[in-house]
This record gives sequence, C-alpha cells and structure tokens, in this order.
Amino acid sequence: MTLLDERTHEAPLSAVTDLFDRVRAQTLALAAPLSPEDMGLQSMEDASPPKWHMAHTTWFFEEFILKPSLPGYQPRDDRFAVLFNSYYVQAGPRHTRSRRGLLSRPSATDVLDYRSHVEDALREGVARNAFSLEQDKLEELITLGCHHEMQHQELLVTDLLHAFSFNPLLPAYVEPKPAPVSAVETAEWVSYDGGLLEIGHDGTAFAYDCEGPRHKVWLEPYRLADRPVTNGEWIAFMEDGGYSTQTLWLMEGWAVREKNGWDSPLYWWQQDGQWWTYTLQGPRPVDLAAPVVHVSYYEAEAFARWAGCRLPTEAEWEAAAEPTPIEGNFLESGAFQPVGRRPGLWGDVWQWTSSAFSPYPGFRPPEGAIGEYNGKFMVNQMVLRGGSCATPKEQLRSSYRTFFYPHQRWQMLGLRLAGDQ
Amino acid sequence: MTLLDERTHEAPLSAVTDLFDRVRAQTLALAAPLSPEDMGLQSMEDASPPKWHMAHTTWFFEEFILKPSLPGYQPRDDRFAVLFNSYYVQAGPRHTRSRRGLLSRPSATDVLDYRSHVEDALREGVARNAFSLEQDKLEELITLGCHHEMQHQELLVTDLLHAFSFNPLLPAYVEPKPAPVSAVETAEWVSYDGGLLEIGHDGTAFAYDCEGPRHKVWLEPYRLADRPVTNGEWIAFMEDGGYSTQTLWLMEGWAVREKNGWDSPLYWWQQDGQWWTYTLQGPRPVDLAAPVVHVSYYEAEAFARWAGCRLPTEAEWEAAAEPTPIEGNFLESGAFQPVGRRPGLWGDVWQWTSSAFSPYPGFRPPEGAIGEYNGKFMVNQMVLRGGSCATPKEQLRSSYRTFFYPHQRWQMLGLRLAGDQ
Amino acid sequence: MTLLDERTHEAPLSAVTDLFDRVRAQTLALAAPLSPEDMGLQSMEDASPPKWHMAHTTWFFEEFILKPSLPGYQPRDDRFAVLFNSYYVQAGPRHTRSRRGLLSRPSATDVLDYRSHVEDALREGVARNAFSLEQDKLEELITLGCHHEMQHQELLVTDLLHAFSFNPLLPAYVEPKPAPVSAVETAEWVSYDGGLLEIGHDGTAFAYDCEGPRHKVWLEPYRLADRPVTNGEWIAFMEDGGYSTQTLWLMEGWAVREKNGWDSPLYWWQQDGQWWTYTLQGPRPVDLAAPVVHVSYYEAEAFARWAGCRLPTEAEWEAAAEPTPIEGNFLESGAFQPVGRRPGLWGDVWQWTSSAFSPYPGFRPPEGAIGEYNGKFMVNQMVLRGGSCATPKEQLRSSYRTFFYPHQRWQMLGLRLAGDQ
Amino acid sequence: MTLLDERTHEAPLSAVTDLFDRVRAQTLALAAPLSPEDMGLQSMEDASPPKWHMAHTTWFFEEFILKPSLPGYQPRDDRFAVLFNSYYVQAGPRHTRSRRGLLSRPSATDVLDYRSHVEDALREGVARNAFSLEQDKLEELITLGCHHEMQHQELLVTDLLHAFSFNPLLPAYVEPKPAPVSAVETAEWVSYDGGLLEIGHDGTAFAYDCEGPRHKVWLEPYRLADRPVTNGEWIAFMEDGGYSTQTLWLMEGWAVREKNGWDSPLYWWQQDGQWWTYTLQGPRPVDLAAPVVHVSYYEAEAFARWAGCRLPTEAEWEAAAEPTPIEGNFLESGAFQPVGRRPGLWGDVWQWTSSAFSPYPGFRPPEGAIGEYNGKFMVNQMVLRGGSCATPKEQLRSSYRTFFYPHQRWQMLGLRLAGDQ
Repeated sequence: MTLLDERTHEAPLSAVTDLFDRVRAQTLALAAPLSPEDMGLQSMEDASPPKWHMAHTTWFFEEFILKPSLPGYQPRDDRFAVLFNSYYVQAGPRHTRSRRGLLSRPSATDVLDYRSHVEDALREGVARNAFSLEQDKLEELITLGCHHEMQHQELLVTDLLHAFSFNPLLPAYVEPKPAPVSAVETAEWVSYDGGLLEIGHDGTAFAYDCEGPRHKVWLEPYRLADRPVTNGEWIAFMEDGGYSTQTLWLMEGWAVREKNGWDSPLYWWQQDGQWWTYTLQGPRPVDLAAPVVHVSYYEAEAFARWAGCRLPTEAEWEAAAEPTPIEGNFLESGAFQPVGRRPGLWGDVWQWTSSAFSPYPGFRPPEGAIGEYNGKFMVNQMVLRGGSCATPKEQLRSSYRTFFYPHQRWQMLGLRLAGDQ
Repeated sequence: MTLLDERTHEAPLSAVTDLFDRVRAQTLALAAPLSPEDMGLQSMEDASPPKWHMAHTTWFFEEFILKPSLPGYQPRDDRFAVLFNSYYVQAGPRHTRSRRGLLSRPSATDVLDYRSHVEDALREGVARNAFSLEQDKLEELITLGCHHEMQHQELLVTDLLHAFSFNPLLPAYVEPKPAPVSAVETAEWVSYDGGLLEIGHDGTAFAYDCEGPRHKVWLEPYRLADRPVTNGEWIAFMEDGGYSTQTLWLMEGWAVREKNGWDSPLYWWQQDGQWWTYTLQGPRPVDLAAPVVHVSYYEAEAFARWAGCRLPTEAEWEAAAEPTPIEGNFLESGAFQPVGRRPGLWGDVWQWTSSAFSPYPGFRPPEGAIGEYNGKFMVNQMVLRGGSCATPKEQLRSSYRTFFYPHQRWQMLGLRLAGDQ
Repeated sequence: MTLLDERTHEAPLSAVTDLFDRVRAQTLALAAPLSPEDMGLQSMEDASPPKWHMAHTTWFFEEFILKPSLPGYQPRDDRFAVLFNSYYVQAGPRHTRSRRGLLSRPSATDVLDYRSHVEDALREGVARNAFSLEQDKLEELITLGCHHEMQHQELLVTDLLHAFSFNPLLPAYVEPKPAPVSAVETAEWVSYDGGLLEIGHDGTAFAYDCEGPRHKVWLEPYRLADRPVTNGEWIAFMEDGGYSTQTLWLMEGWAVREKNGWDSPLYWWQQDGQWWTYTLQGPRPVDLAAPVVHVSYYEAEAFARWAGCRLPTEAEWEAAAEPTPIEGNFLESGAFQPVGRRPGLWGDVWQWTSSAFSPYPGFRPPEGAIGEYNGKFMVNQMVLRGGSCATPKEQLRSSYRTFFYPHQRWQMLGLRLAGDQ
Repeated sequence: MTLLDERTHEAPLSAVTDLFDRVRAQTLALAAPLSPEDMGLQSMEDASPPKWHMAHTTWFFEEFILKPSLPGYQPRDDRFAVLFNSYYVQAGPRHTRSRRGLLSRPSATDVLDYRSHVEDALREGVARNAFSLEQDKLEELITLGCHHEMQHQELLVTDLLHAFSFNPLLPAYVEPKPAPVSAVETAEWVSYDGGLLEIGHDGTAFAYDCEGPRHKVWLEPYRLADRPVTNGEWIAFMEDGGYSTQTLWLMEGWAVREKNGWDSPLYWWQQDGQWWTYTLQGPRPVDLAAPVVHVSYYEAEAFARWAGCRLPTEAEWEAAAEPTPIEGNFLESGAFQPVGRRPGLWGDVWQWTSSAFSPYPGFRPPEGAIGEYNGKFMVNQMVLRGGSCATPKEQLRSSYRTFFYPHQRWQMLGLRLAGDQ
C-alpha cells in the first residue's frame, strides 16, 4: 500500500513536473514581498519562519527523492538535513522546533540558492531519466512533495500574519484592496437525506493516507447552512454575552477562555466603538458580511450552542460536498482574508467539525518516514473541512481532512452551522 | 426529555429506596477503614478527599431533591452548598477544586452527621409522601443520585490509592489477600461480523444522557481479544523497548512520556530485579497474569501498535458486549485491584477505546443543572468501556461510557486488543 | 567553633531541662485547639502541617542527641527519620516537602506518642546521666533543640493561618477578643548618632551561627520611627494609588504585584466599604491603629518610598535595639495578631530591613548537619528584625536575624520607617 | 542632585563630542560583521537583538536630549518612541521586551538611517549652539548617553553570543585567533589591611547614581587572589564532584542547578574526552589557563566553598582596585573572550562579589525618567566588579558596580577568590 492508494497513474510525468514548476514558483511569489528580516520571523512554537518553510519543503524533495534515488546527487550543505527536518523521526535528528527563528544563518539568500540547487537537480534528473526509481513511484513522490509544499504555503501565510501581529507597526503584507460592500444575507438551510453512504478517498487521484480507506457510514437526515457564520453574526453572539456565559461552553473551553482572556476572535480589537481586525492587508474594520475567522473550536462550539444548532460531523460535510465543484476564495485570490458571502461549501475559512481526528476503519499508515505524515497526530485534534483563503485550490478534495487542536486560532478557522432535520 | 429517556417506570418506589439504602451503606463501608486524617487527603486537582466524596454525594440529594421538593426541609448547614458543589455552574458558586484537601472543617464526623441528616430527611419524606414531585420524577432523581454516588465510590477508591501512594509508609487500605496463582494463558481472538447495527441506550432502564440516543452504526467485520492485556505482556513490551521507541507513539504521547519520565505503568518500581506495584492491599510483586492497570491512552495506543493490533472502537466493544452477562471483578469483590485472567469483556480494568468522547447523533443534554452531567466534557477525552475492579457492578450497562484524558493514569485503566478480520 | 560560640556555660543543666519542659509544653498548648484533620493541613510548599512541626521538632532531638549519644536508645519508628527530616542533607533522605500534607499516617495521636517517647528518653537520660556527651555539649544541643522548636512554634501558627484562610468557613483558632479601642497616634522620630559601632552576637548566651561574629560597622547618623507603620497609614497609601503607581516600586516588585494581582495586604478584603482581614481570631474589621502585617518586602519598600522615607538597615535596627528591654506583643500574649500602638522596637510584626541576608565578616558555619542551619539560605532573602506576635519571647535577642524572600507575605511581616538625619 | 553628582565640569564640550563620535563609531564597528538576519536575533527575554540595541541607544539621545531640548527637532518616526523604549516607565509605553526579536520592521537599514538622523541632529545642534539647555547639563546628558551606549555595546556582544549558540552551525562572529599557549600559574594571595576606609564615587568625573555617595566602611584585614579562577581550576572542581555535592551549594543554587541540569559552565560540552566551548570566535577547546566565564553566582559561590575560600565583598574589591591602573582584556582587544592569565584586578571576566546590589548610605535616585536607571533594580541581584572582555574600557572605574541575578550566566561572568587574613 502506498500514500497514493490505488492510484491510477493516468498522468504523464510532464503533468507532475508542471505541478512541480507551478508549486515552486508559487512559493517564491509568496516570499517576494518579504525582507530578509521578515523571512526569519517565528512568533511561537506552532509557527515557523517563511525562510524555514521554504527550506523545509526543499529538504523534503532532497531527503526523500534526491538523496536515496538520484545517483551522484551532492547536497548543497550536509548540515541542512538537521536544520530543516521538521518532525520525521526516522529521518534523523532535528533542530529544536521553537528555535527556528534563531537561524539567522543560512541567510534568506542561501535558502533561495538551496531551492535552486534542489530544483535544478530534480529537473535535470527527470530530463536525464536518471532516477533509480520506477516512474510511477517517482511521480508519486514528486506529487507528494508538491502537496506537502502547498500545505506549507498555507502555513507560511498564516504564520506570517501571526508574527507580524506582534509588530506595533502592523505591516501590510499585500496592498490593501477596497473592502467589498456586501449586504449581509440570511443563511439558508440545505437539507440532506443521509442513509448508508460512503466517504473517504476513492483512489483515483492523489490523497493523503488519512483520507482513506473509503468506507461506509450511516447518517441520519441533516441540514447545513449555505454559508459560514459571518462576523456580523459573531458580533451578535458577543453582544449577547457569548464570551461571558459559562453554560454555553465546554468545561475545558471555558477554562482556556478564562486563562487567555479571550473575548473576541484573534486579532480583533475595539476602537471608537468599531471592531477592527489585523489582516495581511493591514488593520481593517471588521466586515460584517465576511465569514468570521480565527476562532477556536471551543468558541465555534459555544457559538453553535448559542445559536441552537450544532457543528456538522466530517461525514456530513463530506457527503454534502462530494458532488459540488470546488469554487471559492482560496490562496490564489491574493486576498489572504475571507471576503464576504459566497454561498457554497468551499473556501474562505476552514470549518470546524465536531469530529475528532481519528483513523478511518482499516487505516494503516505507510511504512517508513513518509508514513509519519498524519497517523501520529490522531489524538486530541479536531477535523476541519473546506479550505480557506490561504489554501491553494489544487490541494483540495472533498475527502481532504485538516486538523488542529481545539485551542488553536492562528489559522484561517471558522465554522458552518448544522442541524438535525 | 429527561435523563431517564423513555424510561418505563415499572420499578415501584420501594425498589428505588432499596437502591438508596444499599448505595449509601456501601459508601459508609468504603470509609470504614479510614482515619479522620485519611478522610481529608487530596493529592492532585483531579482527585478529591474521601470526606469530600461523602459530602458531595449527599449534597446532590439535598440540592436537587430535598431543597426544591421537600417542603419545610432545613439544611444542616447552608454553607455546605458552596463547599460541596463540584462543577454545577447553574447550582451556584463552588469551593476551588484544588483546595478540597484544605477543608479540615467540617470534620469527618460532621460529614457523617450531614449524611445522616439528609438520609433521614429523604427517607422520612418518602414515608410521609411529602415531596412536591410526581412519583416517577422523584424515583428518577433518587435513582440518578444513587448512580452518581456509585461513580464517586469508584473515585473515592482510586483517589485514595493516589493519595496513599505519596506516603512513604505505603499503607494498606484493606488486608492483603494471597495473590492468586494464575497461569498466563494466551489470549484468543473472538470474531464479530459487524454490519449495520444499533448501539446506545435503549430506554428501558436508567442510563446517563450521553449513552443515547440509540442509533445506527456500520461496522466492518472485526475481532477482539478474549481478555485484557496482562502485566506479563506489558513487561514484554517494556523489555522490547516500548518506552524508548518513538515510532510506536503518537507525537503527543511521546512528548507527555518524555516530560513525565514514564517508563512503566503508574505505581510500578523495580526492586531486586522484580517489578513491584503499590496497591490498596499495599506493595506487591506484579502479577504477570493479571490485567495491566494504570496505563494512559498514549501507552495503550503505543502497546497496540507494538503488538501489530489496534484498540477497539467503542461501537465495536458495545456491539460485542450487549449480549453478554455482566460478570467479573468489580468493586464488590473487595480486591480493589485486577486479579488475573478472566475471559470475558467485563471488569478488572476499564478498557481504552480509540473513540473520542463525542455526542451521539441526536444527542441533546437535558435542561438545567443536572444537564451539565456529561455534555460539557465532550472534547479531548477518550471513551473507556467495561468497568473495573473499583466500579460498582450495579452501575454498569453495555451502553455505559466512561471517559478520561489521554494522559490520565490514576484510574483503573487498561486495554484489550482489537483487529480487523 | 560551635553553634554556641564562646558560650560561658554558667547555666546548670536544670536550667536547660526547665527550658525543655517549657518549650515542649508550649507546643502542646498550641496544638490543643486543633482537630486531627487540622493537624494535617498544608496549604503550600513554604508551609507545613501542625503535625509535621510537632514531629519534626521531636525528630531533631532524636536525630542529633538521642541516636548518636544515648546508648541503647530505641527509636519509636525507624521510618520517621525520613518523614520528619526537613532539609538536613547530611542527615539523609527526606520526604518531599510539598507532600507533607499527604501524611495522613502516622496519625496525630501517633505523633503525640512519638513526642512522649522522645521526651521520656531525653529526661530519663538526663536523670540517669546516661549520655555519652560532655555536659556542656549536651546542654548546648538541648538548648539548640529548644530554640529550633520555638522557631517552629511560630511557623505552626502562621502556617495554620494560611491553611485556614482557604477554608470558606474562616475558622477561629482562638476565641475572638474584643478589639482594643486604640487612638491612632502620629509616629515620632527617634534619632541615633551612628559612628563606628559593633553589632552581632557577643557570645554570652545562646545564639544562632549567623548572628556572629560580632563586628564593627560604620553608621551615619540616622533616625527610626518609634512604632511600626499602621493599618491606617497603609490604607492612606492604598487610597493614594500606592498599588497602581509603578514608579514607587522596584522593577521586580511591580512584576510580582502584577502577576499576583496584589492590591492590599494578604488576607484583606473589602466589604460594605470597610476593610476586613482574616486572623486566627476569625474575620475582623481592620484595626487602623494596629501595625500593618502580611506585607511583602516589595510592598514595604514601595510604602517607604511613597512616604519619602526608607527602610532601616539591620545594623541600624540592632544598634538602636541593643540597649532596650525586649517588651511587646509576642506569642505568649495569645492574641496571634498585632494589637495596636506600642511604642518601642519589639514585637507585633517582624520589620523588613533593607539588608540582604548575608554572612557577617568572618562567618563560618559549624561542621556537620547542624551547620546547615542558616548559611545555606544566604542569597536572595532579606533580613527582618524585632519579633512578632507569633514569636516566642524567649527566642529573641537584639542580634536575632530572621529572613524571608521579598515576595513572601504569610508570616507576620510589617515595617518601620527610617531616614537619614 | 544630578546623575553626575558634584561633577567638576572641567571637560570642554569638544571632549564630550569626541566621546560621542568614538562611541557611536564603535557600535557601528560591532555591527559590521552582522547580516540583516543576525541583526534581529533575540534568544531570550533577558537579551535583545543587535538592531534593537542600536536603535535603543539612539532613542536615548532622541528622547532625553533632542526632543525636550532641541527646538524644531523632527523625529524620524514617531512610532520608534514605543518600539525602542526599554523600561523607562515615565517615558511612556514600551513594546513587550520578549517580543523584540519580532520587529523585522523597521529593517536594519532603517535603523542605521535612524542612527544617522539622530547623530546629525545632535552634532548640528551642538555646532549651532541650538540646545535650550545649559552647556554643562547638555554635556552631562550626552556623556550619560555615551556611557549608556557603552553598556549596550557589551550587551550586544553577549546577547549575540547567546543567540548564535542556538544555531547548530555555531557561527564565528570574528575570525578565530590562535589560542595563546599560556602556562597555568598558581594564583598568589595579595593582602590588604582593611580598617575604616571610604568607597564609592568621589564626584570628580562621570559615574552612575548608584556608585555614590562616597561613604565610610569598616573592613577587617583580607586577601584577594592575584588573578581570576581559571578553566583549569574549574575542571578540577568538576572532577572533584563539584556539581554533584549538595553540601557545597546554597539551597537555592542547588535547586536551580537541578532544574536546569547544570554540570559545567554555559556553552561547554565534552567531545572525545576534551572540554569544548562556544565563543564568538566559534567552537574552541577550553583554554585551561584562561579565566572561567559564564558561571552563575550559585556556581561561583559553591566553587569558593569547595576551595576553602570565599568571594570578596564589593568594598574589599573596590578598596583594593582604587589605586591600580585599569589595564586588561576589554572590548577593544577584539578577542571577545578571556585570554589567559593576566595578574591584576581588571578585565577578562566580571567577578561575582558576595554583596547584594543595595543602595549606599544616603543614596537617592535623581528625579525623572533618567532616575530609573539603577535604583529600581536593587533587590535580589548581586554586584560584580572589574569589567570583562566585552566591556568598553572607557566605561570602567573602581567604583563601577554591575549587577546580575544569581542564576544568570550569559554575560562574561567569572570569579576571584578571597579570604580572611
């Protein structure tokens, strides 16, 4: 069994190298507005510097493809193997995660050189047909590396927002765009029949191990809101005492709220009677019609209780989304923030589900270091679905599961209401 | 909707008062070997003093039955409402949980008097038919109070073990019994067909809110070991480097293991080449044939991976257990520790499942303070099944779900292996 | 050199055994109002249970006199050596300090028996002249044990106050006495010439090692207030923004204040526009004329700055106090709290000085475990002088130095203002 | 009263501007080897990024001289007042200290521009005689700013060493120089008579407020080693069990040692049976003849006890040093590490004294924000004397007191032994 379970391999290698070129260029484009100093910022253990993301995604290709399978490959610097391993135990020792911001050397320029070095070797190896791997395995690994890099593109963006938020200058990463004037429309319910269904990866294209095996689930009839919860609705929750009414909260959520003094989403503050928020376009008034973002699971769950609803399960979300086109506000829009009402199940914000991140029936992680990808995180985290304004569109599938701890807020995390019929 | 969802009420009130008498007497019996000083011990925030358990279970009857529904009832001391509330927000302020061990007053004797005062009032109120409640509601609440008290009987025992373990004298709570000479027998697999089944409380007897609603689940064919994992097997895991092989562990489990320096179950130490453990019968050599106990979810999960198996889901366990009689080593045996191989699904140790504690489809907590019972704990905890040597037998049902955090070990927690067919 | 440096030994042995009888009886009297449960209370690592103080002071006689020097002495229980050692590294392993409250066994009764056992052995040994020690050395050690026990009498009282303060019932340890109606009188300055003086223990009676050697110090002319700062003055400081004006505080003091949310002395609260405090006589309105107590060094130092004064050095205090009689409100008064204006340098509250606890010139700790008494605490602590309402009078001398960390407040700690002339 | 208490003002303004030019150039020279990324590194709350030191020292001139006293002065950026204030409460709000490493903007280039902007304004103001201050006050403030900047030069160097130490590449800040081959010579005692002496600043040149007033002290005859303790001697201490013998340590020192796992000075490790250390010249074998550096007070104090000696008091050190020339290994040598035996009292390493940092008799801090310089640190810190290889020579005087917490090690901290005669 492989990460690309039952993959059909209809894509020619050129499709894979096109993906590789596209993804690598996109990462460079994301780094373009950053100074060498910006490239080194790390604001917490959960986040990493832009430079580190750029080096680590490069290390992934070097460690899992070039070193084992390209005869004669010379690493640019042997020490990078330690500096840029993240958590792959079987791939050897790692630099302490919380200390990534202290790596002033190698410099940003060195890291760009490292990227070129690895890209050149990989492209040349493909061109020369020099890999000691079967072609489908090679395609599989390059594809995995590209998807891995897309995940880090998303992290690069959200980690940068977090780091910048500690700078009193509140810098804008991209030019502010005029805020859309969007009317706040009432959410509508969409009903689903449920029954004995199948969810999970069906094996006809790339997917992570944790998305399969495809399996049967029984769902009672349910309904989902046709859009995520908005900032306007969130302010109504706040004004109704949502953050001070303990009975709305999970026991543990209340304790976390108290300890951290949460009384609004992350990055919000009040100024002259108006709610403001810090975004990658700089400080902005909160857009009432846009989906709320930077809320924890605890807050999302309390909101749903306050609203007399609940969060969906991941199976409910996936069964609803599978037949729908993947359209919405993703990384490629360049907005880097949710931008107003967009009926549909996809984009703008990841949507907390009530499902803990657990193995599907029959799940087995692949052998070797690459198998450390997802399985070892399967405790105490909650699944989110749908992709956000920081997610590359190409990364998404209806079976895609992302997962975060219930207290985390720095990603683009929001919610969609659900209910029984 | 009530806690006793769709209860059929065939039991006469005398059955309920019999239960009340039995449960109250059992609590007293558990306290009998304890000195006034023992009664006040609290060794961590998760645990409470015996005296507090005795008072809190009494407060429950007073707060939810006598005060609202027995006209003319006079509390013994108004201040006990604050001292002995646990976490019922809607029932008013509470004494800080981590400070329960500092309540030298009221004394142990005062608490016994408080117990008599409440028992007398309740019994007399029943005899005089004086409650301002309908009889089925009264029965329901008394039954709930008794089950609540049985839960605290279990906690009293396990909390006491934890507190005593910090006393270098390692006191014996009960007279040591000769350790049974039990041969270690190989575990056998029992196979189950799965399919579209139902689990959850079926409404014909007492159950907690979180056990229902009864609902459909789809299960693939599976198998369960016919007994829990034993100490002998656990030592094999230890000797094979189980505690030093990071790839066996969940990421978070490994971090917890490292931080706490775990290299064996709680209460174990090595002495002259032999593993010893502290129990409520005092220090004893580890019995190789007895189920391993005091292991966290992280350890159980790593063990299962080491063994090439997995933990069962709670649905798998419940579907297997529903048709079987509830027989095994429970609180009433007086052993207060697992006692050797007992084929069957019940008793000796709670068995960690791979299921996070989540609401069943259609779950709604009851209104009011009593509804705070389970719903607010539904995050970051794992379900265990089967009851332990500290669980009163009367408390158990096949639908019974207990839940603990993955790092917790002080309860009687063990595991049973599962696998796919 | 010995702890009783240059002691003249004019006292006959009977004087020492009289002291022994008196001190041991006083400890028993302090414990008389306590229940077995009270005897085991420990509210923080800095504090110990009454029972532990009673056992530890007994262990001191056993460990340093009976075991090494009374042939044939049989300890009551060998395990007590570990349970009741405090911090004497050379005397072997110790039970963890923060876990003393978990020693429900040995019981309070067992500890009383232990006290009798040791007292009987010591008295009988003296009567039989059976010690393998020279008489002056024996007297010296018994005297040291008595002074050690007096220190623990003070701790017993203040630790009990701290533990009881967590009980919402706010129990009274002794019968409340009517609060004296005392007029608030203005403090007067007393002037001192300074010059080249001597301070420190002069060797004619018992003293701790850290009180010597007597040595020269140069003092500029100075002045001291004729009484400690009162509660009334402290409230003026509070009302003038003392707790919210950062410039009055040491950098570190401000950080501690912020972290702990201090806005008044320990055990104070406001109720209906009136300041109340919890004392060993139960809750009481704050007496404006009584010395303020339970303030940290940080608070005392900020108060002095606010008042345009400073704290005295320990040399200033000692030079002033040496010629004065030791009169004031001490443990023997039975008040267990400061009780109003009493001109003089002694009693009611320990007075923070601006002197760090450091070795005097020429200081050398005695050899062996007994030498661990004071020297190893000589960093980061501040000296206090004068004795408090919890200090046995017999323990005091003008050279007596007590010392606490700048953040500590649970002892009877106050202040007296000083200034330059 | 001013910071330059009783200053005689014989220096013409040109002397002050010469000092200004020299100091500002020296800071630039220290930054020359650093990349933009290096300039932003912050490895702990106690340390600051090079860029921040460069901006903060500039802010000091702007805030205390240009803004209040140069009519028409235009700040380069108003927001820098918040970003680069350190702890001057009266000078307004500050950016959180532990977040200085997150200020990727302003860039290193911006900070250099800021430096030029302020330097130009100051020099031009002096040239035009445009300040609204009396000349002696102006000189005084510029002098203070220069001394302040020299302090930050030292911190820049030691903070950089700390930050680089977390980079597995262990970069060299300056070109490694050949280690001197220096024979280890036995230390000799130098005797001093003591008596009634004076120490403290005598008012004829610049000094910090805490160095005065000059005052009398009585010293018993004493002796000091003629050189600091060496690495060779420290290794002897280590090999004799110095780090595992609790009785050598202060109670608190032992606890800190255990918590942090200290078993050698900071930045040391063992490799192939040889001790290595990380320095600003990169990794190097430990030079046995060089003074030991990066040891805490706790370690220094334990070493002295092990050696049968003690640490000197600050008065002993100052009385001995006052008549001696200030010669030794300071910042200007470019070594940035101690370099072998140099008889004399000055240089290589700061020397821990046994004196807590306390106010001298008659000390009063100056009014206003500048008065926050030293007084508010006068608790829980220990005085060190003598200057180190990171200290600008011009900053030193025999009355100069630096101070650190007993647990701190990242500065160039060592020790010299003392004894009684």
